[in-house]
Amino acid sequence: MKIALDAMGGDAAPAVTVRGALDAVDALGIGVVLVGDETRIRAELGTQGDGRISVRHASEVVGMEESPAVALRRKKDSSIRVAVNLVKSGEADAVVSAGNTGAAMATSFLVLGASEGVDRPGIATVMPSAQDPFVLIDAGATVDCKPMHLLQFGVMGEVYASMALGRANPKIGLLSIGEEASKGNELTKESFKLLSDSHLNFVGNVEGKDIFAGAVDVVVCDGFIGNVALKIGEGIVEAAVHMLRRELAHSLLGKLGYVLLKAGVPELKKKLDYSEYGGAPLLGINGICIISHGRSSSKAIRNALAVAADAARNNLPETIARGVRKTVREVTSVAS
Amino acid sequence: MKIALDAMGGDAAPAVTVRGALDAVDALGIGVVLVGDETRIRAELGTQGDGRISVRHASEVVGMEESPAVALRRKKDSSIRVAVNLVKSGEADAVVSAGNTGAAMATSFLVLGASEGVDRPGIATVMPSAQDPFVLIDAGATVDCKPMHLLQFGVMGEVYASMALGRANPKIGLLSIGEEASKGNELTKESFKLLSDSHLNFVGNVEGKDIFAGAVDVVVCDGFIGNVALKIGEGIVEAAVHMLRRELAHSLLGKLGYVLLKAGVPELKKKLDYSEYGGAPLLGINGICIISHGRSSSKAIRNALAVAADAARNNLPETIARGVRKTVREVTSVAS
Repeated sequence: MKIALDAMGGDAAPAVTVRGALDAVDALGIGVVLVGDETRIRAELGTQGDGRISVRHASEVVGMEESPAVALRRKKDSSIRVAVNLVKSGEADAVVSAGNTGAAMATSFLVLGASEGVDRPGIATVMPSAQDPFVLIDAGATVDCKPMHLLQFGVMGEVYASMALGRANPKIGLLSIGEEASKGNELTKESFKLLSDSHLNFVGNVEGKDIFAGAVDVVVCDGFIGNVALKIGEGIVEAAVHMLRRELAHSLLGKLGYVLLKAGVPELKKKLDYSEYGGAPLLGINGICIISHGRSSSKAIRNALAVAADAARNNLPETIARGVRKTVREVTSVAS
Repeated sequence: MKIALDAMGGDAAPAVTVRGALDAVDALGIGVVLVGDETRIRAELGTQGDGRISVRHASEVVGMEESPAVALRRKKDSSIRVAVNLVKSGEADAVVSAGNTGAAMATSFLVLGASEGVDRPGIATVMPSAQDPFVLIDAGATVDCKPMHLLQFGVMGEVYASMALGRANPKIGLLSIGEEASKGNELTKESFKLLSDSHLNFVGNVEGKDIFAGAVDVVVCDGFIGNVALKIGEGIVEAAVHMLRRELAHSLLGKLGYVLLKAGVPELKKKLDYSEYGGAPLLGINGICIISHGRSSSKAIRNALAVAADAARNNLPETIARGVRKTVREVTSVAS
């Protein structure tokens, strides 16, 4: 088992990525190929690491603010490109990047291609709820979706929730604006029918307030809504803490409460940060690509490497591709 | 000034609606027509009220779970229908309802019609942020939008933010998944161009995490996203409080912090509940319709009546219609 790690990706790379790789090699017994500026990576490594850590030089880096399309065209020797190429050539079983998310997705999709039978890729993230965590898909890979794409995200979510969260027969919900099948927009109303016709354990529409109460194991939505939802989640917790502080400032006891409360907030923020769950896989492609947050700690990198190894062991892309083909056949035969 | 109030709308109607009307008449010096079951309304009124409170009988009520389409077809004498008819006939200057939101929107749109030049109605809600409140439009009236609709929502939001929040030249943001004009889906990318070509103070895309930090005065989005965002806001605060409690339960000081914290939570929830701001207007129609939450208190009803009176005094529908026509001309002349 060997994972290619974009060693230059993330705010504190390559220090944090090298640290995460060393931890992963020790804890998980996997091999890691550090891809990027060899001099800088070796400087971080020093005398650490053993035969399971190797370095592959890449002369370029895609910046966090760079356009993925431009990076794809111009930076053929970027660390993310070289790392993905290792998966393509079979030298690595998976790739992990905490760099430019758009570039990592676009490069993986372009180089590895969609799995046979899959129309569009989806990014799956694990989110916290008042009860157990759930999988949200798509978190931003495909922003303009057709009903068939959402059906396929349902299958990807089912497979990933089984693997990552250990859920048997996961409950799938469609993010919408009311529980009844008649509620939603054109996209969700058509998707509702397809999901109902499939073998998936589809429980119907779920609303924004239900998902954080832990109503389902998998929330299906298009990549635009999913990304907006994710960032609203981030934003509102910060704003709520801020507003709470103002409310509590009216009384001395309130102020004391806020001081004590602050102890819990970093933990809570971590729970809302998907990197803590080891990053988010881009699903539906011919290979394994795990995307981590740019602010990933070395622990988050190690977790992402663990998820990548797990996905490779479970042959996630093939399981998903098989599931998608079967499900598309199901709903097509119902329709005809 | 006379406002028609759907006295049967809301979880605790007609007790709460009658109480809210009495308060509004006293505090605001307006007239209120209570529309609904005359016997029940008079029982609540007793000897209270003066010449400024009147009652108009309506024999039917649309339930909270009823389909708006079915209600429109079958319940011609529902309290919401009769109340909207009073606006149509000129007997009332505006209508307020805390009943079935879908039915209130559909009835107002059908009976009063869209303003000349307006393509689709939008519902504007005031939301809290870490800084000042902002207007989000559309919160659920038009779930499938074209770019021209979002442009028109921008105008409606501008006019409403000026009136309701007293903002001069309000900053308009387009809800998307990245700040650059190139980020978003097909709808937002086209809408970005139209908004840029208009006279509006358009500051570009805003992300979910920015809006609760108070980045703009008006957030423009389609009604599906807007409704999802609203409900995620509700859900995540409840989940966050729940998760915080679990985190804090690890230590005695943490537990104490949570107990003190709870004092602030009801206030915070109120801030996240748009009824506290007096309900949300359905904009872009030939008349004034203010929608309140089903759980509205009498204070929220009174606030909604105040917003309705304010909108009537400012001739909100005509100001919006004029602004929309002007703006559509602007972007059309740029395009040609």
